Amino acid sequence: MEHITDRHGLRQWRQRCGTVGFVPTMGALHAGHLALVEAARAHTDHVIASIFVNPTQFGPQEDFGRYPRPLERDQQLLIEAGCSALFHPPVTAIYAGQDQTRVRVEPLGSDLCGRFRPTHFQGVATVVAILLNLVRPDQVFLGWKDYQQVILLRKMVQDLAMPVAVVGVPTVREADGLAMSSRNRYLAPAERQQAVGLHRALEAAQTAWRDGERRVESLVSGARQVLASFGIGDIDYVEVRDAETLDPLPVPDQRAAQTRPVMLIAARVGAARLIDNRILTLE
Amino acid sequence: MEHITDRHGLRQWRQRCGTVGFVPTMGALHAGHLALVEAARAHTDHVIASIFVNPTQFGPQEDFGRYPRPLERDQQLLIEAGCSALFHPPVTAIYAGQDQTRVRVEPLGSDLCGRFRPTHFQGVATVVAILLNLVRPDQVFLGWKDYQQVILLRKMVQDLAMPVAVVGVPTVREADGLAMSSRNRYLAPAERQQAVGLHRALEAAQTAWRDGERRVESLVSGARQVLASFGIGDIDYVEVRDAETLDPLPVPDQRAAQTRPVMLIAARVGAARLIDNRILTLE
Repeated sequence: MEHITDRHGLRQWRQRCGTVGFVPTMGALHAGHLALVEAARAHTDHVIASIFVNPTQFGPQEDFGRYPRPLERDQQLLIEAGCSALFHPPVTAIYAGQDQTRVRVEPLGSDLCGRFRPTHFQGVATVVAILLNLVRPDQVFLGWKDYQQVILLRKMVQDLAMPVAVVGVPTVREADGLAMSSRNRYLAPAERQQAVGLHRALEAAQTAWRDGERRVESLVSGARQVLASFGIGDIDYVEVRDAETLDPLPVPDQRAAQTRPVMLIAARVGAARLIDNRILTLE
Repeated sequence: MEHITDRHGLRQWRQRCGTVGFVPTMGALHAGHLALVEAARAHTDHVIASIFVNPTQFGPQEDFGRYPRPLERDQQLLIEAGCSALFHPPVTAIYAGQDQTRVRVEPLGSDLCGRFRPTHFQGVATVVAILLNLVRPDQVFLGWKDYQQVILLRKMVQDLAMPVAVVGVPTVREADGLAMSSRNRYLAPAERQQAVGLHRALEAAQTAWRDGERRVESLVSGARQVLASFGIGDIDYVEVRDAETLDPLPVPDQRAAQTRPVMLIAARVGAARLIDNRILTLE
């Protein structure tokens, strides 16, 4: 696997390749990331991953400084997963300094997680635009665990006519159902037991939906009860939205019958802010 | 010359070409635009121009509706100039509807013309990002008449690592010095006489600079006196800025000695909002 840190090396690598699949990450890799690499290998000739802990998508009170950066282990995992190249730039290779350009997707970027992380999605959209322009992949692979991120970046790519396909890859979970996340390592053992509450709450909503419940308020209150039963009280949101657009479901009756709904949850457990989601299906 | 109106046709054309030079325009072509085509022909194998009167760069009180659209004449001029292709999309081929993504370059986009046209440069940056992603040129050619636009788009391309070179092309002028502009046709005969005042004001600043005047305030007040002598009173701004960045010159003494300064003027003459600029040189 090639290890590339500058723009010039990236361009040279890109010119030698056939179709290219791109897996952008912030490192601290887990099985969810490796599923992205696997999906990319199945779809494209060459897979390049990036590891870049992007400062502009963290708020001033957030975990940029302590975000884990186990580079050697990450490299080993990518090699074993069959990655062709790793782009691992320093901050100065992405932001030349005095940069003024920001890509915003609004109102989507101010909704859901954007309500609690006001500059987050602007940082995500801008860095992904930069990475896509540098890597020039044919397809980019993103995990559905960050549901809003996938929808928002797909919208950006479509709106700006960027020549790349955005492919969402299913969430990988621990044995008990907890969605894999680099931030799970912030959880103390007791918190780890609580954290599975997000998954359980989504399962409860799915069961209710399958059994015919169509009232958004009931689905949400049922999920909140499950979170409470796991001792999770610091909830940013529990929402049911249109799975394609993340628009609110039609008011006034808020029935979700005509649409494909997704439930999304963000909650804080100990020092970790956790998110998870589930598309509600009839099966 | 090929006439392309949809994305698919554009992609097919692009795949057949060697190096591509791109001349984005809003049509109503004049000799300034043809100089862009000429520069593109000198630098690249194939030249594609676009004609797209972009609604998002006009303010609600501006001239979007009455902006001239002489398509047949424009096509003829492009053929005679040696253009290989024209991309002339309907609005729906650029904005699919429900678009949410905007590219902003701030604070530059809120400065100078942005103070008087608050959403203008956001519209320009976004549409040019879309056009560059669709056309995928090697070089894009822009007129220095729109000085702030060139600097801002060059910044966008650099900040987002877009794989294209931004080439500025010198302003083409009428015999008396008036900068060519599609909006000059809004001028009544008496206003046309006044309009040359912008050029004269810039020439006065150049003469003063060459003769040793280094005080920004004196350069500006001299230019304003010339504008007044031409009966131009509705002035948006007269500014002297750093020619590379458009930053204000160093305060507090505002001396422009250490830098390469540019004077920029925006003023209204009759129904036309006119802009012009000049780099101040020692020759």
